[in-house]
Amino acid sequence: MKQITLAHGGGGEEMNALINEIFSIFENNVLKEANDAAILDDLAFSTDSFVLNPIFLKDVNIGKLAVCGSVNDVLMVGAKPLYLSLALILEEGFEIEKLKIILKSIKEECNKAGVKLVCGDTKVVPKNKGDEIYINTSCIGKSIQKINTKNIKSGCSILVSRDIGAHGCAVLVERNNLEANIKSDCKSLKDEVLALLNADISIKAMRDATRGGLSAVLNEWAKLSNLELLIYEEKIPVCDEVLGVCELFGYEPYELANEGTFILCVDKKDEQKALEILKQFNANAAIIGEITANKKARVVLENAYGAKRILEAPKGELLPRIC
Amino acid sequence: MKQITLAHGGGGEEMNALINEIFSIFENNVLKEANDAAILDDLAFSTDSFVLNPIFLKDVNIGKLAVCGSVNDVLMVGAKPLYLSLALILEEGFEIEKLKIILKSIKEECNKAGVKLVCGDTKVVPKNKGDEIYINTSCIGKSIQKINTKNIKSGCSILVSRDIGAHGCAVLVERNNLEANIKSDCKSLKDEVLALLNADISIKAMRDATRGGLSAVLNEWAKLSNLELLIYEEKIPVCDEVLGVCELFGYEPYELANEGTFILCVDKKDEQKALEILKQFNANAAIIGEITANKKARVVLENAYGAKRILEAPKGELLPRIC
Repeated sequence: MKQITLAHGGGGEEMNALINEIFSIFENNVLKEANDAAILDDLAFSTDSFVLNPIFLKDVNIGKLAVCGSVNDVLMVGAKPLYLSLALILEEGFEIEKLKIILKSIKEECNKAGVKLVCGDTKVVPKNKGDEIYINTSCIGKSIQKINTKNIKSGCSILVSRDIGAHGCAVLVERNNLEANIKSDCKSLKDEVLALLNADISIKAMRDATRGGLSAVLNEWAKLSNLELLIYEEKIPVCDEVLGVCELFGYEPYELANEGTFILCVDKKDEQKALEILKQFNANAAIIGEITANKKARVVLENAYGAKRILEAPKGELLPRIC
Repeated sequence: MKQITLAHGGGGEEMNALINEIFSIFENNVLKEANDAAILDDLAFSTDSFVLNPIFLKDVNIGKLAVCGSVNDVLMVGAKPLYLSLALILEEGFEIEKLKIILKSIKEECNKAGVKLVCGDTKVVPKNKGDEIYINTSCIGKSIQKINTKNIKSGCSILVSRDIGAHGCAVLVERNNLEANIKSDCKSLKDEVLALLNADISIKAMRDATRGGLSAVLNEWAKLSNLELLIYEEKIPVCDEVLGVCELFGYEPYELANEGTFILCVDKKDEQKALEILKQFNANAAIIGEITANKKARVVLENAYGAKRILEAPKGELLPRIC
């Protein structure tokens, strides 16, 4: 590893290698837990930079994405998002009208998520040293229940909150000027997560399936728990439009990014209750698998005929600048 | 205002116009206070992105700068920095060896400042869509004393913690390959600020004089308090090397950026005590002026002969990518 490649930003194996080899100098008990947000006494803290290209998709722009991204990370550790920071890196020549549209989306999304924008920063870089606008948001939340990935154990059930791959597909469609009726799933997950936290459910882990998609989350969970995950392939909800785009470009829907879709791990006894709650928000929510007792850190996909294959962690460039 | 210009990132009048005209849609009680960090119950929260060019100065690199920047902002509102986030936007092709040096500086500076790095994010952008590395840090601190700029009132004294303009000069020297013995002032201000907070001093306001330098801070204070600030020009500490570089490039030292220098406003009765504390950390600390009772939001510079002139807020491109 001598130089940074686009694959280092893809959320797959190369990024994990970068984190494990280079960023490991920061090792501490909080970082080691590798949750979506840091769990700090009664606070949760997350940060994300957004380099989406193009900055405007059909129904979503980089501003909305930037709010949802950090807010959802805080929700994933069982905290209520409260405060948001906003830092912009603008390219010289960026149009003020575009900036206004993006800021309007940020404001609307902050209102929906119930977070207050409390601090900010703006930097400007010369032409060709940026790309219109890069956004960083960091979010502070107050802990309701500490959801920590280290609590995953065998026998638990795995659920997904809706059909997968919509955000990745929406970016593909936009970049390639395709005619396809696909909307990004980008949204704040506040309502569904708070509903789960307020129900009497033993939640073991939650993670939104952003870069690297479902496959990245499941493989991370397998690694962190050192257990085998068994996933029933035909239960994974994928809509026809996403399947079509995936075939066209040779992508696996499991690896496509999502921005408002999360994976949930609960006690087996609570799986139906959790599913019912998720279905109130999206009819495509599903129970897709379980944590087995097999002490092998891997993800096994079983198809409708009982045939099994390993679902590897994403690798390579995937789809750069998806978020 | 149709397009973003480099001046919008300069920390001067154009940036203020951008904030007042475009960012005002976010208006709320916290943002309105315009402190260096948001004051939230018992927490302080700050964010900053760093686009320094070049990324390595003589004794300081963008990594150290990124830690000090957000940590100092939290200190300025009277809080003890505790947690830091780190988000990187790396350009494809960036050398891993450079990244390692920067991360090492970040770690060292976190240790010095007593903050724990608890969450992070890495994005990669294609060549010519970034410039080696951009860094965002956000910092959470715990409030010791709430230092809020809105407490500034007439009769108070204004102090500066050391001689000004060193960081801006260090960047100029590096960019122009000059032979000049100037080191950036970049450092965490933890020790001096905690010493002030623990002394029995009535602190009205603190602000680190980063983009736009001393001049930007004083003009912001004049505006926020709607009072005239009287500054004794010959008391402002500027070292000979900085004066020399300023003459060469036609800059005012008052407008040059600092990254480890802060302006302090205290009750007149506490000015000597505050000065003594500051002098323990830097012999060039000085009392430089006072808040008058004149209800005109302006900064007046008085020279040794009693002649007065207005110190305007910085304007124009200044020195882009200073931090």
